[in-house]
Amino acid sequence: MAVGLGPLSTLHPVPGFELGIASAGIKRPGRKDVVVMRCAEGSRIAGVTTTNAFCAAPVLITRERLGGEVRYLLTNTGNANAGTGADGLARARRSCARLAELTGVTESAVLPFSTGVIGEPLPVEKIESALQAALDDLKADNWEAAATGIMTTDTLPKGASRQFQHDGVTITVTGISKGAGMIRPNMATMLGYIATDAKVAQGVLQDLVRDAANKSFNRITIDGDTSTNDCCMLIATGQAALPEISDASGELFAKLRQAVFEVFMEVAQAIVRDGEGATKFVTVQVNGGGTHQECLDVAYAVAHSPLIKTALFASDPNWGRILAAVGYAGVPQLDVSKIDVFLGEVCIASKGCRATTYTEEQGAAVMAREEITIRIELGRGNCSETIWTTDLSHEYVKINAEYRT
Amino acid sequence: MAVGLGPLSTLHPVPGFELGIASAGIKRPGRKDVVVMRCAEGSRIAGVTTTNAFCAAPVLITRERLGGEVRYLLTNTGNANAGTGADGLARARRSCARLAELTGVTESAVLPFSTGVIGEPLPVEKIESALQAALDDLKADNWEAAATGIMTTDTLPKGASRQFQHDGVTITVTGISKGAGMIRPNMATMLGYIATDAKVAQGVLQDLVRDAANKSFNRITIDGDTSTNDCCMLIATGQAALPEISDASGELFAKLRQAVFEVFMEVAQAIVRDGEGATKFVTVQVNGGGTHQECLDVAYAVAHSPLIKTALFASDPNWGRILAAVGYAGVPQLDVSKIDVFLGEVCIASKGCRATTYTEEQGAAVMAREEITIRIELGRGNCSETIWTTDLSHEYVKINAEYRT
Repeated sequence: MAVGLGPLSTLHPVPGFELGIASAGIKRPGRKDVVVMRCAEGSRIAGVTTTNAFCAAPVLITRERLGGEVRYLLTNTGNANAGTGADGLARARRSCARLAELTGVTESAVLPFSTGVIGEPLPVEKIESALQAALDDLKADNWEAAATGIMTTDTLPKGASRQFQHDGVTITVTGISKGAGMIRPNMATMLGYIATDAKVAQGVLQDLVRDAANKSFNRITIDGDTSTNDCCMLIATGQAALPEISDASGELFAKLRQAVFEVFMEVAQAIVRDGEGATKFVTVQVNGGGTHQECLDVAYAVAHSPLIKTALFASDPNWGRILAAVGYAGVPQLDVSKIDVFLGEVCIASKGCRATTYTEEQGAAVMAREEITIRIELGRGNCSETIWTTDLSHEYVKINAEYRT
Repeated sequence: MAVGLGPLSTLHPVPGFELGIASAGIKRPGRKDVVVMRCAEGSRIAGVTTTNAFCAAPVLITRERLGGEVRYLLTNTGNANAGTGADGLARARRSCARLAELTGVTESAVLPFSTGVIGEPLPVEKIESALQAALDDLKADNWEAAATGIMTTDTLPKGASRQFQHDGVTITVTGISKGAGMIRPNMATMLGYIATDAKVAQGVLQDLVRDAANKSFNRITIDGDTSTNDCCMLIATGQAALPEISDASGELFAKLRQAVFEVFMEVAQAIVRDGEGATKFVTVQVNGGGTHQECLDVAYAVAHSPLIKTALFASDPNWGRILAAVGYAGVPQLDVSKIDVFLGEVCIASKGCRATTYTEEQGAAVMAREEITIRIELGRGNCSETIWTTDLSHEYVKINAEYRT
């Protein structure tokens, strides 16, 4: 029941980046659950990872190894390898070591990623047994299969691609993501991999992945639950015949930044569109804040309110619940008499009260749509923030009550 | 589907306090929806009200009038009179003025309380037309009818009563509450009225209501939504033949405090037991915190996580979700290797990992119960906090998706 998420559009291959998929039978026999990605020699990779204190073993290892030479990314689904302590670290390292051995690279050139159930031992033998098949499958034109291979409760694969020209050279940015529940990324998302063939200096790449994640993955929420395994990686293979981008200026950087931001936004929003049980794609826009943080506080209070989310599911313009959430968001000295609230283009509350022009029919017409914007004008300053979320449906409860059965 | 909430136990009358119930047909014809409470001359009343910035008109008026002489409390259900601006204030004042006129007291001696849908105009004529019937119904032995009269989505009335002896005199503390959704009180709850015939100085009474609410109403959450209309009132009629309690010391104060705390706790927990769609009554206890605030941050992260709440509904010991919530609760420099987590008496995680002694069967046995304690040991200090919450069921979504239909 994904909202506005169709079949994948064309995902252009990125020169210097290949993907291979195999089945290790981690959760279900035959399911594609291991993805290996190979970066050409000389690639640079930057990333952001979860801020959850209980971060998973592979996240700890990936953090250690980022910045050094990276040649392979190894992802498994069906098991998060989180809450597993020293044994979890040993198992993650062992799977990386085996891949390094098969490919003749150093162990630290392999980054591990896991997603799935928390707290169970990683079935490392199963993963090892699937590595050669994944390596045999490596090809540049394999993004769609990889997008499917990293899915868990996702109902559809998620990916986006952009190309642009510079000095007669075509540059590609292609990315995929997964995630549908336990989604409130904080510095990153469940899993996102975005690659480009541009050549980018390490510092520039790190700033770029942080900025792009902040405006995309870090602005989505489904259930407010920040995962233990969030990772978002940006790979620059440097295969394009253009000079290295050594600082955040110039036309080439501007074009790349635009393409990267678009791909990040599309694959991040795709996670919301495929949110567990989602029947609505909801944009919460807060304007007129005194600070960005107070805009975010209001936006997340609205996006996390189970009462608003169930009203969205019911297409009920119960706008009083929106006012209530704005009121408890914790904004200091909030003057409610300055607040306007819009559902789509309809003003529902003006100066803190029901708008005199508002009719229930207008609200109902907006709420009946699949894509809804809630806009809140705080009247305190010039800051704005926008986040994206879903409704709360019977299906969400069903999916999460039955997740492990 | 309330959890462990049976028929009301005996609610002892409080000398000097009477209650009357009538039907104004605010939401449904014939429903008892207006409650008038009369306090004897010389009564003192203290209270706490919501911290929601969008607090309702009656809350603003009650705040103004608290501390002065109060003789009547006027409550309606079916309409919250919130988000209604100046017109809402005028309507609330008008209903108080009419009650003052009928009873010969000054208007400021009447406190208004409303609960129900937000943002609709208060049908003040309907309320006025029911006032005489409510006055005619006033009697000391009417607590159960009043507990029913203040209900909205509640499935059962909520009340508690205690008596104790001092110098041969019997002192009574009796209270009622309502609430089942939009419950995360902050300084108070939806509506709570607790009366005693003890004679208590105003300052002592105000401290007592604040302290008691902090440990009871301010430690419950159903959906994390702090209401616009929360009010909790403690009335001391002073009819008992004992000296005034003029400071927070002495045996009489200690006994009264104990009885008040017990009544507050029972009626606050009753709200959770009757939480919308609740099938579980869940205690979240956090020990070993460096500060009380970090204990509360962890407890509320666990209590508000939709993933944990749906696992509780499914009786699934998916303890990884608990670790994840502890990890994102925002505790600075959290050392996960010191954390233990217990489900009931079963240790599920030790030093941040799955306990070696833990079996899925042990966890499942605890989760199958209706009343479950999640205990988290942070290993950082000596602070503890306990809160109470519910699971998230299909029924919650159904109730809140269909609330206005």
